[in-house]
Amino acid sequence: MITGVYSMTLCDIGNTSFHFLENEHQFKVSVEDTIEHLNLKEPIYYISVNKDGEKKLLRKFPNAINIEDKIVLKSNYATTLGVDRALGCYGYSDAIIVDFGSAITVDIIAHNNHLGGFILPGVEKLKEIYPNISQKLTFDYIEKINLHTIPTTTNEAISYAINAMIVEPIKINYQRYNLPLIITGEHGKKFLNYFNNVFYEPNLIFKNMKLLLEMEK
Amino acid sequence: MITGVYSMTLCDIGNTSFHFLENEHQFKVSVEDTIEHLNLKEPIYYISVNKDGEKKLLRKFPNAINIEDKIVLKSNYATTLGVDRALGCYGYSDAIIVDFGSAITVDIIAHNNHLGGFILPGVEKLKEIYPNISQKLTFDYIEKINLHTIPTTTNEAISYAINAMIVEPIKINYQRYNLPLIITGEHGKKFLNYFNNVFYEPNLIFKNMKLLLEMEK
Repeated sequence: MITGVYSMTLCDIGNTSFHFLENEHQFKVSVEDTIEHLNLKEPIYYISVNKDGEKKLLRKFPNAINIEDKIVLKSNYATTLGVDRALGCYGYSDAIIVDFGSAITVDIIAHNNHLGGFILPGVEKLKEIYPNISQKLTFDYIEKINLHTIPTTTNEAISYAINAMIVEPIKINYQRYNLPLIITGEHGKKFLNYFNNVFYEPNLIFKNMKLLLEMEK
Repeated sequence: MITGVYSMTLCDIGNTSFHFLENEHQFKVSVEDTIEHLNLKEPIYYISVNKDGEKKLLRKFPNAINIEDKIVLKSNYATTLGVDRALGCYGYSDAIIVDFGSAITVDIIAHNNHLGGFILPGVEKLKEIYPNISQKLTFDYIEKINLHTIPTTTNEAISYAINAMIVEPIKINYQRYNLPLIITGEHGKKFLNYFNNVFYEPNLIFKNMKLLLEMEK
């Protein structure tokens, strides 16, 4: 029997950063940066969508444990489903999970079965496209643009499009499947106002890692 | 009084190409390429969203006539509305005009008034983003992906997102305003099946240039 506080470190290795949780303390390190200086409490449990990042973690912490194989998800999706998406869905029987990272993944789970999902580009990547099409399409992004009012300036026209490209495909599936909507990820908070009855779980991955490790005990 | 066939050349100078119509013959030349070899029937009437392209046309054809100032459009939009969008709306009292070019412009006209619009990135630009986020997001684009079935492979997940990012923001406005939907532009044909009661006008800009010149007589 385990008593007292079980002390450990969790790590989510994404495309652009290591995201650590050591006890209650969270921090990020770019995957480009060194982690040699880190002094972390072991055991370290991690997931990774980034092979180079994983190698870097294991060089410094050879005992770190990849928990990917412990994630059981009944899914229609081919084996190419990213481990971060599978873990995000873990523990949900009926939900739409939207993770706002450098890409925005949308996954649908109904009756304990992952039905599938889709992958939108992240906000930052969408913002980069426009000046790339034409110099005339430089703009100041309006974060909280109203999607019910038609734009009348270039700044509005592009900001509207960026947010609508993300919101409308999610919304149409929200209406179609009528399941609870869970939003997570760095940029997710800014999009909460576009949806009714949304649950914001900024630490979904760590929450589900803990849940998984708890179930393993 | 003008009798017989009025012979002339029309030119639409876009971000990436000169689009010519000489009598019934259409052709495109990249804005990067030379037009020195062209032997075109004058008068030449044109519009341009591309200053360098316009200079190039005028070097070769100094008598070419910019018709921008002839386009009268009652609009809520600031003066930054591109001339191609204004011309696309010309002659419509109530419509949603969608032009599928290197950017996709969506404009709404009701009761002879341009209410506003928004600017989505073109399909090609959206396709370029994904491998740019992560090597894992390389994919084969499925052009006619079904937007009513949730994807179960990465190819589907990305193709679905690309098409949904374009279709859903247009559809939501189509439902909101309940106006005839007019689609034009190179890539527009591939998107016709996603909409009900859509009018395809591949030559909308030339049609409206002719209409404008006709009204001027």
